[in-house]
Amino acid sequence: MIYIAILGFGTVGSGVEEVLRKNAAEISAHAGQDIAVKYILDIRDFSATPYEKLCVHDFSVIENDPDVSIVVETIGGARAAYDFTKRSLLAGKHVVTSNKELVAAHGAELLEIAKERNINYLFEASVGGGIPIIRPLTQCLTANRVLEISGILNGTTNYILTNMLKNGETFDAALRQAQQLGYAEADPTADVDGIDTCRKIAILSDLAFGREIRPDDIDTTGIRSVTLADAKYAERAGCVIKLLGRAVVRNDGKLWVYVAPHLVARECILSNVDDVFNAIRVTGDAVGDVVFYGRGAGKFPTASAVVADVIDAVKHMKTRRYLGWNGVEPGKVAALGDMESVFYVRSDCTVQEAAEVYGAVVMLSEKDDTERAFLTAVMPTAKAYAAADALRSRGIAVHSIFRKL
Amino acid sequence: MIYIAILGFGTVGSGVEEVLRKNAAEISAHAGQDIAVKYILDIRDFSATPYEKLCVHDFSVIENDPDVSIVVETIGGARAAYDFTKRSLLAGKHVVTSNKELVAAHGAELLEIAKERNINYLFEASVGGGIPIIRPLTQCLTANRVLEISGILNGTTNYILTNMLKNGETFDAALRQAQQLGYAEADPTADVDGIDTCRKIAILSDLAFGREIRPDDIDTTGIRSVTLADAKYAERAGCVIKLLGRAVVRNDGKLWVYVAPHLVARECILSNVDDVFNAIRVTGDAVGDVVFYGRGAGKFPTASAVVADVIDAVKHMKTRRYLGWNGVEPGKVAALGDMESVFYVRSDCTVQEAAEVYGAVVMLSEKDDTERAFLTAVMPTAKAYAAADALRSRGIAVHSIFRKL
Repeated sequence: MIYIAILGFGTVGSGVEEVLRKNAAEISAHAGQDIAVKYILDIRDFSATPYEKLCVHDFSVIENDPDVSIVVETIGGARAAYDFTKRSLLAGKHVVTSNKELVAAHGAELLEIAKERNINYLFEASVGGGIPIIRPLTQCLTANRVLEISGILNGTTNYILTNMLKNGETFDAALRQAQQLGYAEADPTADVDGIDTCRKIAILSDLAFGREIRPDDIDTTGIRSVTLADAKYAERAGCVIKLLGRAVVRNDGKLWVYVAPHLVARECILSNVDDVFNAIRVTGDAVGDVVFYGRGAGKFPTASAVVADVIDAVKHMKTRRYLGWNGVEPGKVAALGDMESVFYVRSDCTVQEAAEVYGAVVMLSEKDDTERAFLTAVMPTAKAYAAADALRSRGIAVHSIFRKL
Repeated sequence: MIYIAILGFGTVGSGVEEVLRKNAAEISAHAGQDIAVKYILDIRDFSATPYEKLCVHDFSVIENDPDVSIVVETIGGARAAYDFTKRSLLAGKHVVTSNKELVAAHGAELLEIAKERNINYLFEASVGGGIPIIRPLTQCLTANRVLEISGILNGTTNYILTNMLKNGETFDAALRQAQQLGYAEADPTADVDGIDTCRKIAILSDLAFGREIRPDDIDTTGIRSVTLADAKYAERAGCVIKLLGRAVVRNDGKLWVYVAPHLVARECILSNVDDVFNAIRVTGDAVGDVVFYGRGAGKFPTASAVVADVIDAVKHMKTRRYLGWNGVEPGKVAALGDMESVFYVRSDCTVQEAAEVYGAVVMLSEKDDTERAFLTAVMPTAKAYAAADALRSRGIAVHSIFRKL
């Protein structure tokens, strides 16, 4: 019998308990042993619930109980979660988590502690919810030099963008709906401003390129500036708007890593990823493109990934998984200025002004539209933004400027 | 230094050698050791090529060389490949393969030998080419009860069907083109008649459900009966035609496992998988749908998966991976007769005759079409085919009858 403790009994934590209970027979068969929840740590009180006897409020009870060999951290954030994870690892307990914020910020340090103690710190659920991506990336694509990772990594923003495009909802209405359905938090900043996507592309880059990529080094733009007008013009261009986290290997080995809204052509498989679904496209030099698709969040999909890690920890009680990366390499993440792309621009400029500062463009707006929307030729990012500044310096509003994938 | 031998130096075998050479630095970093090819076994002669010194024609040289710890079997078929794999395992050598025919037919026996010797028999490349699917299924989805697997598992047939639908090519013209491009063999039977797909869904079912599913027990229909007319009517129904391998869990725990052409609605992500790409959709009770997409065949994609397995074998020289399944459970695979579906039927019948034998139908053909094509209501397979027999008994031709996904 393997005893585990669940830290944080919110959506994911309670999902983990439920999956362990519901699929106990299959899980025991896979793990080779029965798995039992010995403690649930939460601030809240669970008296008069089935969890009353498991509930503790003092982490040291778990820390000091040698029976507990695996700790599931589903608290979130990088404060209590960081403290408890570190203490769990130092106490020789394997830790499994869905906490992208913690892995992106302190993964290197926590993995180092796990390495020293010959135990596992596993975080399959931290990226893509239930979608298998960490193991495929670190075990199945190891023969490849990874050339690019591009992903729809946040379900909330994808739900909002899908609703804007398909149902003509405004950003605010779509956000409110996402909040009502429980997809978006009351404070939607981490989702809407791309911070969640930033943490996830950081983790994928750490693993794919073997160097710590700090979230702070990732140029991050969310979807607050996307309007219904942009959705309409994107459609005219045969595209949809998606928030992508991307890591692209340059010829000199440096990386462009960034988060931004993109116009994605309908021919691209990422354009078909709607609602709260996520998809991650990995390009390797041998395998070409592979795509992993599924529910990127939610109680049971995320619990599915957490419990798979728990099973893996049980099967590898005495051996460490080969997860980890080296420290920050100064200059590894390059500025986006010379990254080339087609850009989408929406502005109050005239057709002539657009051509003057951007050169040849493909107009998406019609003559009687009150503004201009167009696609540029392939150009460096710095040049695209300098042209926007040139418009602004003449008192012309630039409403949107996005890359095209 | 780890020495390997490559058996069969065709497309995949030579791709393995090339990937090992080209990405040697990355591969050594992942494996923790350098990997060198010591022997290449092939019937052909490689004098005056860079492989001259590695080439052997006698398997016993490899079998008896204790330096060789991993054997890569890329011969294909279940004759020499079976003999050499068995002898390699009995000699205590790990074996990595892309050979779906061998794994589907003799996987259980070969895995049993590997288990006894505490070594690995790995076959990630046998399903989905370069797409990671075996590990995600056996390691990342272990918290789930798998409810269904549906996949486009054969690149050749998908290339043919895509060309029929998108370019209006006939089956014969599309097949010839696939042969010219090297996607289809001179004898296309295994692809076109669904045999390759059958082997792959057998392997996925073995792993997902823990019981050996014999290819002989899988109802298998290929794409020879698919015509341009069907492609046209499918389009009118908002669908495309795809050859799917499927395993569906019934309420009583038995399985429906079969291979057949399907009408797939455009809303389904599998409908967007074109050309030689493959995609596998796995439905778990916790995770919901997850999809794995990529190049299902080809030199480098397949080599990518083989080499990843070689790296895994190097990392697990002393420990066995938890791959395997139990023997055949009589009655586990249920007959398709009571499996319910919407059916697509194309026939020389009249509208009245269609309604008489199939009940309410949705007509896809127009009044001036020379034949009738329609979708039935949801009905058991046996009833759908009995209705077709009723038409035939009255001398009316039934050209096509496919399921709708």
